[in-house]
Amino acid sequence: MKKPLILITNDDGIHAPGIRYLIEAIRPLGDVVVVAPDKPQSAMGHAVTIQVPLRLHLITDEPGFREYSCNGTPADCVKLGEKVIIRGKPDLIVSGINHGSNASINVLYSGTMAAVIEGAMENVPAIGFSLNDYKHSADFSHCGKIIKSVASKVLETGLPDGICLNVNIPVLNGSPIAGIKVTKQARAYWDENFDERKDPHKRDYYWLQGEFINLEEGEDNDHWALNNNYISIVPIQIDLTAHQFIRTIKDWDLEG
Amino acid sequence: MKKPLILITNDDGIHAPGIRYLIEAIRPLGDVVVVAPDKPQSAMGHAVTIQVPLRLHLITDEPGFREYSCNGTPADCVKLGEKVIIRGKPDLIVSGINHGSNASINVLYSGTMAAVIEGAMENVPAIGFSLNDYKHSADFSHCGKIIKSVASKVLETGLPDGICLNVNIPVLNGSPIAGIKVTKQARAYWDENFDERKDPHKRDYYWLQGEFINLEEGEDNDHWALNNNYISIVPIQIDLTAHQFIRTIKDWDLEG
Repeated sequence: MKKPLILITNDDGIHAPGIRYLIEAIRPLGDVVVVAPDKPQSAMGHAVTIQVPLRLHLITDEPGFREYSCNGTPADCVKLGEKVIIRGKPDLIVSGINHGSNASINVLYSGTMAAVIEGAMENVPAIGFSLNDYKHSADFSHCGKIIKSVASKVLETGLPDGICLNVNIPVLNGSPIAGIKVTKQARAYWDENFDERKDPHKRDYYWLQGEFINLEEGEDNDHWALNNNYISIVPIQIDLTAHQFIRTIKDWDLEG
Repeated sequence: MKKPLILITNDDGIHAPGIRYLIEAIRPLGDVVVVAPDKPQSAMGHAVTIQVPLRLHLITDEPGFREYSCNGTPADCVKLGEKVIIRGKPDLIVSGINHGSNASINVLYSGTMAAVIEGAMENVPAIGFSLNDYKHSADFSHCGKIIKSVASKVLETGLPDGICLNVNIPVLNGSPIAGIKVTKQARAYWDENFDERKDPHKRDYYWLQGEFINLEEGEDNDHWALNNNYISIVPIQIDLTAHQFIRTIKDWDLEG
């Protein structure tokens, strides 16, 4: 039986501990092609490189395992992996493990999830994994079981067209994982401000900083799950249409 | 009566003809603050700048009209406009006019629409305008009527939390606009490949290129509307949860 072909990427860069752990967890499931950014691309959203040429750098070439770094974004990595390296569609795309949560609206800022959404756009089953710990030294040792379990299931059953998965994993703080919850994207926002500073030439500059505020009261959302020691799985769709609001706009008396 | 305060941005950069036209169309409706990128930021998706400090440059300071360029992305521009310049929420955010369509899945790649989605995240009513013409010399002269009409209506009634508008305007090709259609995001994809070249040092490099393929057969989608001379309005939501698929995943026998 032919082994499945799995494309791996991330947004923290090819040397990040998160992707190194993910690669080791995924390799037993199939042949693996890694195409990941040569430098961190966090908070890059669904950026695509069109102003500078893209380059690939072959790092590892073993039977069943090839690894490339790329000067582009996570979305670029998926496109290059499929069009230039695999020259076809992989059976699965996995992205991560992100250093930091991609729960709630963070899915829209995340380069890790942009790679996954790119897969959904092409109807390739795709899963993003994120650990709720921003540190380089984060402990990923409890992530292998859910990675293998979800990836195996998706390899077996596929995903509907235009749908991908956003898996967020809590940090181990002495207690074991409470379980797995299939949730919805939490309604939340970043309460942000800018740290306003002056450079040595007395010119102003700004650093974004902020605090995450969850507006949900229930337990059926990803932010709650993550903060209560559950692994969260949210199915994400690429159709952003607010279908329920179409009727209202149709009643507006607009002129064009 | 206090005039509404309107924040304007785009992704083609502050000097692009599209935003210059949009500013003139919007100014009669209220006080205007422009914060736009100092260089083109197309295809930047929902990128946010966290690695380099952000800077603002005041260009125009007139009663009821201030204009700043920024070294960041469209999403950065919205955040800086609100937190540093306005120091509060505007009554409306408008973004564009984008040089090129943001119909269908392009909404996910678009910096213009990222600024609008940023507004929806903060529950500020926000509208993106795009013209289906990539050229710098594009003719925007027929865009004023729909801009004023939609912006006035949204200033009057607001938008539901977490919902924004994606307005795409067809090119005038000798015939008048056929009308306005409230549509859904077309199911479609980019059939892409890379133009593979060698640099003078014989190293490979790649340029992304592609063709847009619409999978829809009906007339209720934005791509059809735009290509049949209609102005398209799609309500866009920031909740990406595929709610209809949650039940299925709950039945999976996963281990974590």
